[in-house]
Amino acid sequence: MTFHIDYPRVVPERRPPGHEPAAPRYTLRWTRPVNRLCCVYFGIQGRELAWDDQVAFFSRIRDSFIIDSAPEAHETLRFTDEAGYTNAVLVAYWTDPSGYMEWLRDAAFIQWLAQPQRTDDTFGYWRETIHVHYDRHETIYSEGNYRIGLGRCPDTKVVPMTTNGYFGAARDRFPVSAVDPLTSTFKVKMPAPGSKTTLGRRLFAQVPHNLTSIRSGQYWGEAKQEQFDDYEESLRPKLMEGMQYLLDNKEETGTLCLRVMSNLDDNGDERYETSVHAYFASLEEMESWASSHPTHKTIYDHAITKNRQYGKKREVVTWHEVFLLTEGMPFEYINCHPETGVLPFCTLYERC
Amino acid sequence: MTFHIDYPRVVPERRPPGHEPAAPRYTLRWTRPVNRLCCVYFGIQGRELAWDDQVAFFSRIRDSFIIDSAPEAHETLRFTDEAGYTNAVLVAYWTDPSGYMEWLRDAAFIQWLAQPQRTDDTFGYWRETIHVHYDRHETIYSEGNYRIGLGRCPDTKVVPMTTNGYFGAARDRFPVSAVDPLTSTFKVKMPAPGSKTTLGRRLFAQVPHNLTSIRSGQYWGEAKQEQFDDYEESLRPKLMEGMQYLLDNKEETGTLCLRVMSNLDDNGDERYETSVHAYFASLEEMESWASSHPTHKTIYDHAITKNRQYGKKREVVTWHEVFLLTEGMPFEYINCHPETGVLPFCTLYERC
Repeated sequence: MTFHIDYPRVVPERRPPGHEPAAPRYTLRWTRPVNRLCCVYFGIQGRELAWDDQVAFFSRIRDSFIIDSAPEAHETLRFTDEAGYTNAVLVAYWTDPSGYMEWLRDAAFIQWLAQPQRTDDTFGYWRETIHVHYDRHETIYSEGNYRIGLGRCPDTKVVPMTTNGYFGAARDRFPVSAVDPLTSTFKVKMPAPGSKTTLGRRLFAQVPHNLTSIRSGQYWGEAKQEQFDDYEESLRPKLMEGMQYLLDNKEETGTLCLRVMSNLDDNGDERYETSVHAYFASLEEMESWASSHPTHKTIYDHAITKNRQYGKKREVVTWHEVFLLTEGMPFEYINCHPETGVLPFCTLYERC
Repeated sequence: MTFHIDYPRVVPERRPPGHEPAAPRYTLRWTRPVNRLCCVYFGIQGRELAWDDQVAFFSRIRDSFIIDSAPEAHETLRFTDEAGYTNAVLVAYWTDPSGYMEWLRDAAFIQWLAQPQRTDDTFGYWRETIHVHYDRHETIYSEGNYRIGLGRCPDTKVVPMTTNGYFGAARDRFPVSAVDPLTSTFKVKMPAPGSKTTLGRRLFAQVPHNLTSIRSGQYWGEAKQEQFDDYEESLRPKLMEGMQYLLDNKEETGTLCLRVMSNLDDNGDERYETSVHAYFASLEEMESWASSHPTHKTIYDHAITKNRQYGKKREVVTWHEVFLLTEGMPFEYINCHPETGVLPFCTLYERC
């Protein structure tokens, strides 16, 4: 079977009448019913963060994956944040909410993370939990045979689709978009510098309804010289320019957080693969940048041109997965600097 | 149209093979697609709580219902809690999450509730937000023409159904039960008395995944003498005995909170109508009491006997609506006593 959810549409679709995409794209489906998707980003943060410290953190998490409720897929990544700190990240995916809850209860890593002394550690730690209904996710892959992110979960297949190639296609791919305009009342507002004390504390950030999480990936590790060089010398600089624009204009673009992460191999070496993970206040704000800003047009046009030029011989893979959050489990930040994640923008809580 | 969601079943249904219920029952459907249901209980609490103070609270909330994003239905109720405090309650229902979020942003009542001085007021206030996917709700009504609770929302109809009359029917009525065993890792554990300081504070309680909220209603206001007397003298005492058993055995039964509320008319007089609102740690624990405890069997047998005796002439209405929560917007308790709501059992947070 190919599981999917479709609702009778009451919100008009964005697809222009009669639109057929010029190039095929792919999306993820499950071969069994799936109700909720859980994606958790675990981070360790340090002004200096040696590989030994990163691997110790990863090992502590992975040692908790020996139980039945382990995630169905996970990956490791690393990035330097805007404050200059190194952050090593493990992202894990579950599709069984009961399993995920059992893992939270039983995992030695979670018990370690909960210990009060974590706030006195040399490093900071963070945990961003995305746990949404199936109807609040969408995926797109430039090709059908590269598995990454959610796509590494079992019982999945990558299938061709035609909901692509026009502005608004991402929105149309969310099943919930058929019945919900997905507006947001949350606005990104820069806090006064120094207004939040976060180091030495364990803070919980309440995320707003319809917060939009995008992990957008690029993989050029199997590209031969010509396409490899084009990616590194032409497409990547355009991508980085777009990301920098968003980082430089958070209020205007609704960007709470944006991380250009490198995917790691088991030795901690950076692969020829990146994942940009960003939170936008709303889908509309993300769309607004994608549909109207020159920095996105430049990226998009280059990617489309190369896809057309090489056709089936395109060796650079691009993809993304997007989740629309509801008010859920708060994001957790332990001994992190005040610019970490959504800390600057969300209401913060401490445990009593 | 009659909107509903059905998933391909991977978790076996509880319905015995070939079961057909002896008596018809009814359930709620919408005539348009509905994705999320929001039910918010607003409470004011006082050791002494005059009607004037109750009506001032209700009016303050209702004055915030003049905007477009007002709830689609609401009711007022009152109960005395286990600590002997009077609580006046307004329950409000939305089916449009964007509307609900706009109301939270714009309602003068919400701004008043957020003011820091609320913790110094004479009274306590609480707000319990239930905001779930459509597939995590179920309803049952003993008859088709009495509208109450969610059933007072527009664009609804009450339709006959046959998913009733066996243990496990409530579970089978949740669309999500087809694909999720709906287990919980949360256990009710009585706190040490005096271990939580709650008066004078604004506290947020994180509710656990799969917390089960039931509002179970009884209406005998249109019953003629014979059935009226039977309700008051026979069925109600049995119901109250069952509720007291749950209150006396919270850990064993997974009961976090149980309130026997009287529905109010506009003058604050109690109608011949009650609503028992309870939170159970899991659907399984609620089912366990309903399927196996003598106090429930006594209630159930009496109700069934009377339904059969009177058939279509049954004048006492019974109904319920159940929601299965996910970790969502935390419940809020302002200057409330420590036994209020889920305060004794949930992890508590304060805003920074």
